[in-house]
Amino acid sequence: MPYTPEQRKALMRQCTTLISGFPRPTPAETFQRLADWSASNALDTDAYGNGHALAAFEQKIASLLGKEAAVFMPSGKMAQLIALKIWTERAGLPRFAMHPTSHLELHESRAYASLLHLEGVLAGDWNRPLTREDLDGIGEPIAALMVELPIREAGGQLPSWDALLALRDKARTRGVTLHMDGARLWECQPYYGRSYAELAALFDSVYVSVYKLIGGISGALLAGDAAFVAQARLWQRRFGGELPQISPFLAAAAMQFDTRIARIPEYYQCALDLAQALQTVPGLRLNPGTPHTPMMHLHFDAPAEAVLAARDAIAEEERCWVIGYCVDSRVPGWSSTEWVVGDNLLALGVDTAREYVEKLMRRARA
Amino acid sequence: MPYTPEQRKALMRQCTTLISGFPRPTPAETFQRLADWSASNALDTDAYGNGHALAAFEQKIASLLGKEAAVFMPSGKMAQLIALKIWTERAGLPRFAMHPTSHLELHESRAYASLLHLEGVLAGDWNRPLTREDLDGIGEPIAALMVELPIREAGGQLPSWDALLALRDKARTRGVTLHMDGARLWECQPYYGRSYAELAALFDSVYVSVYKLIGGISGALLAGDAAFVAQARLWQRRFGGELPQISPFLAAAAMQFDTRIARIPEYYQCALDLAQALQTVPGLRLNPGTPHTPMMHLHFDAPAEAVLAARDAIAEEERCWVIGYCVDSRVPGWSSTEWVVGDNLLALGVDTAREYVEKLMRRARA
Repeated sequence: MPYTPEQRKALMRQCTTLISGFPRPTPAETFQRLADWSASNALDTDAYGNGHALAAFEQKIASLLGKEAAVFMPSGKMAQLIALKIWTERAGLPRFAMHPTSHLELHESRAYASLLHLEGVLAGDWNRPLTREDLDGIGEPIAALMVELPIREAGGQLPSWDALLALRDKARTRGVTLHMDGARLWECQPYYGRSYAELAALFDSVYVSVYKLIGGISGALLAGDAAFVAQARLWQRRFGGELPQISPFLAAAAMQFDTRIARIPEYYQCALDLAQALQTVPGLRLNPGTPHTPMMHLHFDAPAEAVLAARDAIAEEERCWVIGYCVDSRVPGWSSTEWVVGDNLLALGVDTAREYVEKLMRRARA
Repeated sequence: MPYTPEQRKALMRQCTTLISGFPRPTPAETFQRLADWSASNALDTDAYGNGHALAAFEQKIASLLGKEAAVFMPSGKMAQLIALKIWTERAGLPRFAMHPTSHLELHESRAYASLLHLEGVLAGDWNRPLTREDLDGIGEPIAALMVELPIREAGGQLPSWDALLALRDKARTRGVTLHMDGARLWECQPYYGRSYAELAALFDSVYVSVYKLIGGISGALLAGDAAFVAQARLWQRRFGGELPQISPFLAAAAMQFDTRIARIPEYYQCALDLAQALQTVPGLRLNPGTPHTPMMHLHFDAPAEAVLAARDAIAEEERCWVIGYCVDSRVPGWSSTEWVVGDNLLALGVDTAREYVEKLMRRARA
């Protein structure tokens, strides 16, 4: 009998080894770190978007992205909807385009349509990043194009720098505003070998997350020119996102930002090494074959329930949580999951991780 | 020369005595309390609106309000807009009514119009709570009526219980949904001498705050029947308010809720005593003359800048921050501020508070 979701949660909590991602502190541990950091840094109280530390962090991110300004928001969903609202309103055209795997299309209950009354054109292919040709294929006017770097649903793939330039040029020619969904922008840096500012310069506005790789609690920044960000602040109030105090989210982001950013080359190299090591595991394929970022999707030649049962058995016996979710693929009998290469994998080492995957596959296909 | 806003902030921070409201911990102090409380209570991590402690707190508030369900949201602005969205959509009528001093009208940059495309009818008088007669005066169909209990901008006034029943009956007759803006509902209890559930029972949906009197960091709950709350959760996602983690806001609310709620009768009695004591201060009038809640507005027979200069001088000399803001009234030469009776005033005592106000007036009118 497979475990219930509650039993699986309990099983995961008992594990002493996690492979994907980062150690997950309890709220109490997180708050203790926030307290220590805030005391050391004399963090001031913010109020409704105003505060010294808040403004300093916003300016730090803006500078890193080479933009005039940035605003801290409670969530990336809010930040991106606001960007779309501003750009479509400026263009006088309630239509934008995005990749079919965009977070807005898959995970936001059609907020762009039901809340903002915008039409979302899906452009490009599930399996690869947006290209200039995809933009060519949009046979109607659009106000803005949302470009996710990297595209998560295809294992964190990135377009080449030249492809990105071509897309930018085409957008410029057509008068289409470019917005970057940079939920995982931080992770792109080693692949391009360019500064964040060089990457962001191709876009009119950029959203970045501070809770995924950065390890914050929640929160996002939306960056662009000063007028854009001023208008975004107004919309943030209207969305109910200008909070009496956002200090926990701010502190959690600010205290970990530099450390995590500095380790990205290590995460990336580890992902490359890991992909190399995993080539020889029977019944396994990776997407992309060679990682573009410290993320990869593992595709298993076994049904999801068999993989999860194998995961649970290993967790029971060895207190190692090899994978989180696993879902069936459209190819019958195949399934997949996602690995994020972070502090957990750096601590564990590539060889041990490979052994666990091999064991997982052996059990799942037994 | 009056101080700059920055100098005034510094001056306030130097004060050892505050009269209005509650002690204001630094973020570091708050986080330390969160850490200790979360460790003692084994607070679990929530994710996108799901978590044991989160669900338990939502259920606790729902039960207290006698409603089937409640949902924790990052802000009251978001909660109330979502309530309006749901009720107007159900009625098939994008029009609602509210008091002219409603937070939606005064402090949200017309979000109900620009984001939700709703028409807001202003009903009633700035100086008193909404009545049945105000509803009678609305000569067009409305989907919902938003009723703030108490109305902050008029010093925290409440309608009588009978007036509230009459309003509810009229709304029912007209088929108008009633939503309670309960930003300060907790403070109403002693005036009515009825349970929160009895008060909430007059309304189809209720918003309550957990950061004002409760002393949380940010956050609100929206309560109603199960179908309403389920739909509210969907809109919360669309507004970008379904956060990866909301644990700091949850913990800050949950750890202080019972203590603060239990002290409300003391705050209220202190407000009554204080209003009595302040009757004899020359040049001062209170609104309401006898408080309805632990809040009052102080009206000074002196211009705002003179009162603020007096406040600053007292702060310099005695390290006491007698009032926060002060704004000129529409009556030339008069100005006003707000006092919230909380732990600061309980600690200070009514007599000392009265002395400070008398001193403030003497200096302001010198």
